[in-house]
This record gives sequence, structure tokens and C-alpha cells, in this order.
Amino acid sequence: MATAATVARNCRKVMCIGRNYADHIKELNNARPKQPFFFLKPPSSILLPNSGPIVRPKGVIMHYEVELGLVIGKTVRDLDPADEQGALDAIDGYLLAIDMTARNVQDEAKKKGLPWSIAKGFDTFMPISNLIRKSRIPNPQNAHLWLSVNDQMKQSDNTDLMLFRIPRQLSDISRVMTLDAGDIILTGTPKGVGPVGTGDIMRAGLKVNGRDIEEARIEVE
Amino acid sequence: MATAATVARNCRKVMCIGRNYADHIKELNNARPKQPFFFLKPPSSILLPNSGPIVRPKGVIMHYEVELGLVIGKTVRDLDPADEQGALDAIDGYLLAIDMTARNVQDEAKKKGLPWSIAKGFDTFMPISNLIRKSRIPNPQNAHLWLSVNDQMKQSDNTDLMLFRIPRQLSDISRVMTLDAGDIILTGTPKGVGPVGTGDIMRAGLKVNGRDIEEARIEVE
Ligand SMILES: [Mg+2]
Ligand SMILES: [Mg+2]
Ligand SMILES: [Mg+2]
Repeated sequence: MATAATVARNCRKVMCIGRNYADHIKELNNARPKQPFFFLKPPSSILLPNSGPIVRPKGVIMHYEVELGLVIGKTVRDLDPADEQGALDAIDGYLLAIDMTARNVQDEAKKKGLPWSIAKGFDTFMPISNLIRKSRIPNPQNAHLWLSVNDQMKQSDNTDLMLFRIPRQLSDISRVMTLDAGDIILTGTPKGVGPVGTGDIMRAGLKVNGRDIEEARIEVE
Repeated sequence: MATAATVARNCRKVMCIGRNYADHIKELNNARPKQPFFFLKPPSSILLPNSGPIVRPKGVIMHYEVELGLVIGKTVRDLDPADEQGALDAIDGYLLAIDMTARNVQDEAKKKGLPWSIAKGFDTFMPISNLIRKSRIPNPQNAHLWLSVNDQMKQSDNTDLMLFRIPRQLSDISRVMTLDAGDIILTGTPKGVGPVGTGDIMRAGLKVNGRDIEEARIEVE
């Protein structure tokens, strides 16, 4: 069983799907995409379980986005979007992850037509759980994600609400970038994103059919 | 002496500085940045020397951008922008590289405030040379970059024209993302970027004080 440290070490790219839950698109006043789009986070942004707090950079309004992460198990190119089995076969395991975002930096970048890499890429901006064995999530489109801040529930939705399902995501990404074993995909966040600051405690979890599969507790510095 | 294959294997992130030569900013009608900005290219976009052509994705207007690449030799965080020696010490060697760009995809992304990752991240979109030993470029702010298409010179300028010099680049990047040994930084492109298509042959080179240090020849499919 791979530890989170092994997952981090083997990861050479992280691709994150944007705007993949309808209610989250509305809450940020964004346009609904006609096709999946994605951006990169650097492997250096990964924060391992129990390895310290998320560090808020000075002047940054930092938002949480809880997401289901896929750890890729083999090389994938030009996957057919209808190939559900091919998509499942490409997945080695799952992660509970938070796509931390410097929202004010991102808003500024959007306005100016600049890249998102800085807004998404600070150190500690990608807390991940331990690797979740594949067998524990029989259907990745039926997993419940939740996130609370100081024991107030903020995000709580099922992955069946994704606009673009996982085979389509892997297809669109793999037509641009070859996926390699160890790569990580974050599949988008449900509604309820918001700011966290110094001293806040986030808890996040993943359930399947009402059963707790993974939980994490992360402090903000 | 590390081969290009070793460089590619050791690389976990590629950070590219945008708009770092004044005349290149003008030619694309961009705003001059008040501070360096950068974006990520995935390691999967690296194209090794003599390993085949650049592949143009369907419907893509593909531009070349010749750049000086830095291969990082050690962990760097929060470098002081005035620390010229610290910046030099962080560099393990150099690359001649081309930051291939899907310009129409990028233009669309800019207009919509979307990330640049797709426009910059296709497979083969980052041809690199062999590693250039550090001693061969005594001063990275005095290297001449050139690129020709079908024997017509298109780009030919010295790195002394950079708006933000290398210590400032490493400083700004390392305040966001920890730099690790093996990471690559592309330092921006001089004026003269333009499209290439099927059958075009690009040559690129790097000179120091009039002496050829590295040359490459790349076909476009
Ligand atoms: Mg392909
Ligand atoms: Mg996200
Ligand atoms: Mg460039």
C-alpha cells in the first residue's frame, strides 16, 4: 500500500479540472464550460497528511476546494471519452485532496488574462490524504465529499454531480498531455468554497454509501 | 555529464517566465508586467534532441519561442532578489529550449480568463537541447539566442535584454514554489516569435561571445 509520501514522490504533474459542478460555477459567477478545462498545480504544492499546516501567503485570500483525486497507474494517450473501462483501468487509486486557491490572485489573473499557476501553486496548497485503495471506491461517480471549517459544514456533495465525468476528463487531458503513472488528477470541487485564515481548522472527508472511507484534519497558519 | 534524457527524467516542474523582453511584449500587444509572472509546463511536454518532430495538434496555430533554460541544482526557497551569487549557485546547468505555444488557444484563454496550461502543455511542446555545462556560459545575462525557420532568421537577441534578470526570476518563483533539484526554468523569449507548420524546419542556437555553444534542428509534423 503506497503511502502519501510515495504518491507525492511519484507525482510529476497534477492536472485539475475547473468548473465541474454546476452549483460551484454559479457561486463564483463563472461561465459554464462547453468542454472540460484544466490547469496544472506543481508537485511542490503537495502537503502530506500530518506534516504541518497550510501556510497562507501574505496578502492572499485563500479558498478551500475539496476534490476527489485520481492517482494514475499507467501511461494514457488519447483515451476515447466513451471508454469507461479504459478510464477505470487507468486509475491506480484515489485521494481526498484540497485544491487551495489564492482567490484574489486568481481573480486578478482572470481579469488580466494571465496564467493561474501562481494562484494555484503555492507551497502547501495541495493537502492530500493517504492513498485510498481502488477497491474502496467501487464507483468514483458515487462518492460523497465534505469539508468543514471550525466544525461548520461548508461543502457536502456527491461526485455524481460532476458535469464532465471521469472518462471524459481523462480523454480531454490525455489528448493534450500524455498521462504517466504517478500523475494526479483533481476532478473539480462542489459548491460551498470559501475563505480560511490563520487558526482555522478544516476537516474533510470522503464517504461511499454512507460509510466513512477517509478523513483529514488540516490547520491553517 | 547529464544527458537530456536524464534532465527530463529528473524534472518535476517547469516554470516559464512570460513577457520578459520588451520588444516581444510589443509584438504581441501585451501589457508590460510590473513584476515577473510565470506559468507551468508539464514535464510530459519535453521533447528530447533527435527524438522526432514537434507535433502540431489539429486546429492549433503553433508559435515558437526560443529561450534560455536553467536547470536547478538544489532546493531554493525565498531567494533574495539581490542575491546574485545565490542565484548562480542554484543553477546546475543550462538548456537551449523552445517554449512552443498554441497561440490561438492561448489567445482564447486570455480573453476568457482561463488558464494557459493547455496552450502551453501539449506533448512535444518543449524541445530541449543537451545539458550545457555551467562553465560554458560564464554569465547567463550575456548569451545570444537565435532561431530560424527554413533558414530564415526569426529570433536573434542577447539575454542582456531581459526585463527581469535571473536572480529576480528565481526570487519571485521561489517565494511561491520551492525550487527542487532537477526543476527547469525558461527565462522568456526575445522578439520575433511566429507560426510554424507541417514540414517546417527550425534551427536554434546559443552563442557566447560569438562562439557557438549549442545548436539544434527540429522538424514540425
Ligand atoms: Mg496526443
Ligand atoms: Mg479546484
Ligand atoms: Mg515563453
